[in-house]
Amino acid sequence: MFLCDIGNTSYHFFKNGIDFKEDTLNFNPLAIKEKIFYICVNADVHNILKHLDNWINLASYIDMQKYYDTMGIDRIVACETISDGIIVDVGSAITVDVVKSDVFEGGFIYPGLKAMGETYKNISPALSFSFNFECDLDIMPKNSQDAISYGYLKTLKSEVLSHKMDIFLTGGDAKIFAKVFPSAKVDEMLLFNGMKKIIKKAQLC
Amino acid sequence: MFLCDIGNTSYHFFKNGIDFKEDTLNFNPLAIKEKIFYICVNADVHNILKHLDNWINLASYIDMQKYYDTMGIDRIVACETISDGIIVDVGSAITVDVVKSDVFEGGFIYPGLKAMGETYKNISPALSFSFNFECDLDIMPKNSQDAISYGYLKTLKSEVLSHKMDIFLTGGDAKIFAKVFPSAKVDEMLLFNGMKKIIKKAQLC
Repeated sequence: MFLCDIGNTSYHFFKNGIDFKEDTLNFNPLAIKEKIFYICVNADVHNILKHLDNWINLASYIDMQKYYDTMGIDRIVACETISDGIIVDVGSAITVDVVKSDVFEGGFIYPGLKAMGETYKNISPALSFSFNFECDLDIMPKNSQDAISYGYLKTLKSEVLSHKMDIFLTGGDAKIFAKVFPSAKVDEMLLFNGMKKIIKKAQLC
Repeated sequence: MFLCDIGNTSYHFFKNGIDFKEDTLNFNPLAIKEKIFYICVNADVHNILKHLDNWINLASYIDMQKYYDTMGIDRIVACETISDGIIVDVGSAITVDVVKSDVFEGGFIYPGLKAMGETYKNISPALSFSFNFECDLDIMPKNSQDAISYGYLKTLKSEVLSHKMDIFLTGGDAKIFAKVFPSAKVDEMLLFNGMKKIIKKAQLC
């Protein structure tokens, strides 16, 4: 089974237990000749793939009434994967979604690591630091690097923890963010597991 | 008494109970001939003002040992104004500082309204919304505009409220953010009050 999760910046492939990435700007999907199941949030890539018969869009096999119209398919598939919990998917954006008893309860979107670094840098050169993931989020900072690190990470942490649910951490930066959410279950393959579940349910394979 | 608080983007003047702003890129400080007390976080402007005898930098009259080296003078003056509480200063950046029994306990920096709007827009055109300040932050969102509004505003709110202190809201966007912090004391003149306190203590006027 060949799977692909397409984000804003990359194709994320999964085949025979191995995953690899290709850049959305450079990769030509015509290079894939075999049957491949995909989900895609990138409008440009979506317009190419819909004309390719071997690329099967899994969005068609999900009960979309449980979700809202403009919700990203990656968030929807992640929600389909779990029954109860809060999913934190850290990519170019960070999406946070709550599922209770198999029902999507809502979610929010927060900037990813690269985007937020640019943000602080653009506000003032005095804030042009990388984020310090070793920063102690239990005490208020007294230096500039920790002041932006806490501003970015602790605000997110406070909100996620306030829901008092099991945390599922996934996405390209999941391992880095495990320092912020030490109690989280880290599963970088969460989306692929969700895709397999949908394929099985729809008897596509 | 003529006062000026200089930020990254504007000169904020205060004289005879009236405040007004000038752009840092266009305003010529030589236009002010009388004695004026100022604080300044803008390095370029600072380099001009230090050569002008009638511009008095109040930074010289504060006990800086209570604070950290690279901390913005605007944050320091705000902290000098109160004895107990959490100050949320919403400008091009949002600074959040905690003071307990006249002692600075630390603080963090979060992106301002304009900077964070740009951030979401740059991540994806699908996130190019203005923030909805009417969004109910007590329920998880089920539409894209509220998903970014909640992501920006509720994370900040959760963290600020977790300190369980009186909230002092100031800065150019204070009135807009009063919707996020309904219990806050809104005081757009907080910094000028801090400056007056320093001038009085140092017997400068």
